[in-house]
Amino acid sequence: MPESHVTRRAALREQLRAADLDALFVIDLRNIRYLTGFTGSNAVLVVAAADEPGNESGTVLCTDGRYLTQSTQEVPELERIIDRGSDSALIARMAADPAARYRRTGYESHHVTVDQFELLTDNGPGIDLMRAPGLVEVLRLVKDETEVHALRMACGVADQALADLIAAGGLRAGRTERDVARDLEGRMLDHGAAAVAFESIVAFGANSAVPHHFPTDAELRQGDFVKLDFGALVDGYHSDMTRTLVLGEPADWQREIYDLVALSQAAGRAALAPGTDVRDVDRAARKVIEDAGYGEQFLHGLGHGVGLEIHEAPALSKTGDGRLSAGMAVTVEPGVYLAGRGGVRIEDTLVVREAAPELLTLTTKELVVV
Amino acid sequence: MPESHVTRRAALREQLRAADLDALFVIDLRNIRYLTGFTGSNAVLVVAAADEPGNESGTVLCTDGRYLTQSTQEVPELERIIDRGSDSALIARMAADPAARYRRTGYESHHVTVDQFELLTDNGPGIDLMRAPGLVEVLRLVKDETEVHALRMACGVADQALADLIAAGGLRAGRTERDVARDLEGRMLDHGAAAVAFESIVAFGANSAVPHHFPTDAELRQGDFVKLDFGALVDGYHSDMTRTLVLGEPADWQREIYDLVALSQAAGRAALAPGTDVRDVDRAARKVIEDAGYGEQFLHGLGHGVGLEIHEAPALSKTGDGRLSAGMAVTVEPGVYLAGRGGVRIEDTLVVREAAPELLTLTTKELVVV
Repeated sequence: MPESHVTRRAALREQLRAADLDALFVIDLRNIRYLTGFTGSNAVLVVAAADEPGNESGTVLCTDGRYLTQSTQEVPELERIIDRGSDSALIARMAADPAARYRRTGYESHHVTVDQFELLTDNGPGIDLMRAPGLVEVLRLVKDETEVHALRMACGVADQALADLIAAGGLRAGRTERDVARDLEGRMLDHGAAAVAFESIVAFGANSAVPHHFPTDAELRQGDFVKLDFGALVDGYHSDMTRTLVLGEPADWQREIYDLVALSQAAGRAALAPGTDVRDVDRAARKVIEDAGYGEQFLHGLGHGVGLEIHEAPALSKTGDGRLSAGMAVTVEPGVYLAGRGGVRIEDTLVVREAAPELLTLTTKELVVV
Repeated sequence: MPESHVTRRAALREQLRAADLDALFVIDLRNIRYLTGFTGSNAVLVVAAADEPGNESGTVLCTDGRYLTQSTQEVPELERIIDRGSDSALIARMAADPAARYRRTGYESHHVTVDQFELLTDNGPGIDLMRAPGLVEVLRLVKDETEVHALRMACGVADQALADLIAAGGLRAGRTERDVARDLEGRMLDHGAAAVAFESIVAFGANSAVPHHFPTDAELRQGDFVKLDFGALVDGYHSDMTRTLVLGEPADWQREIYDLVALSQAAGRAALAPGTDVRDVDRAARKVIEDAGYGEQFLHGLGHGVGLEIHEAPALSKTGDGRLSAGMAVTVEPGVYLAGRGGVRIEDTLVVREAAPELLTLTTKELVVV
């Protein structure tokens, strides 16, 4: 949907003008994808502040010969330069611009290495390179409807994969964590994921007490917790969901911590409203667990932004910064982990909305007994 | 095998002394893995030049609380600092060193961003940070036997997966490129790959003429070329192999370009000897294809180094730089691509040895008809 990219570039230009910059030199590939739709593995982009939608002659993408056809298809509306030394070639072209449209050019100082900065300086005589970290990331905080659509698809794939796994009897005694991870990931690919969003966490029994446990050859046994933290990648966007189930009839302590985490998670979701300080969202969920005496067993933050990266701003945590806005996509994922026994985490991906937040991961949060 | 890591750190210290540096501040995770065996996703490391094997008190790893146990298990012989702000914490500790062992500290200017450099400068008063790109990468050029063992395992996994795929009838008319990629990748995981080494290339028929074609829903038909470029990740090391097969009896033009590429590939392998200029290896293989009149249809370089990264130095290409040494691990992968008809690439991973190169990918290079 090229309209989105045009709109995003227009929003970036407003930021550039406010920062008194003539242009932004973009090297981060996710930022380039966000601004242009280009999905190749090598490119740099300059966005000129003086351009207007429909007349973007100062905005140029540079990539190499492998992407000649692909860049034409994905970014037909912008000029493209094909050159293996993309960053040198683009900055040299900018330095030679007859209209001198790139005098004060911002660059992504949080992505550009010291050596690369020298290369840009050497090849861009007359251009003042100004540190400008995070300008595109700020725009990416609030998702537009094209992005929410991709997130919704990615979350739907994960929902379907888990439903299939359960329906097919994929969670049965004797299967290993690795078996289940492979099975679940295969089902996400079957449902259209381009890839998994991150290395799946599959943890049985006492392993579920390790927040980030990676699949082993441990076998599933009656009475085990089954903690599944997984996601799908669709159109460059990541989903992120955790569900904790039990094989066979749950013990009282399992029900107790499950219900507690579910209550905490609901409180976290309820706190998602535009204008709310991100630390207050964390606090709302954390208080439920602390009041029950399990505060020490919930050691990580409540959630994080999700989009073109699996972890992006804002952080919903004690040390987070800023307030929520409508359109932010975040996870809410409290957990209680009892070392040596087992743990529960429940995680959704949601979009902050003016009214109630929009839930994208639709799998039930009732305790599922398989 | 911690002996390898001790030896590697000793080799790095020789480089540091030659460069008149007191220490190297390492942020690249592959370099940290190479020097210490640490496999987590966040760490920084300082290696003090004055340390000796058995007395490495100035060499310190810094990671965060998630890796408390793992870092103790993986790097028991070095001091570890646990701190979320790893880079600031480590440089501050270095600045406060009573023995002042870090006065002139090199840093990886090809990995450190401009913002991160400022953070290090601000938190390391009194430390002169000197640009020192590529010091660890130079060591990584020549693989030790621990590394060759991992590469051999990774290549063996790929060999076995392809043999299984063929034996199971996985290459049959009607299957899609995506089906075959999933099947082949699953078999690598079955044989012990931690992950695939890179996104597999599976190309049928005319798609095989696209050097880097990613799997689609195109179906395999009688007479098609089947180009498979894939690899396994084992202990952090990547394998890389391409084979091109035919479904059903090959046409004359298919045999012709297959035999040509096989001849070129053999010439490239035969040119792998210590002391040889990397451009001459490319030339040896390229000449065979050029002499047959297909030079325009072989557009990429001949090969690349492979190890902790799928693409690393040296580049075996027209624009490559340097000479081979015994112990370098490289690919040899010429190809001929006839647009709209089909293409052939044959690729091995090998280790340069004093006598003949050691072949790690053992699948036959005879034209396989399935």
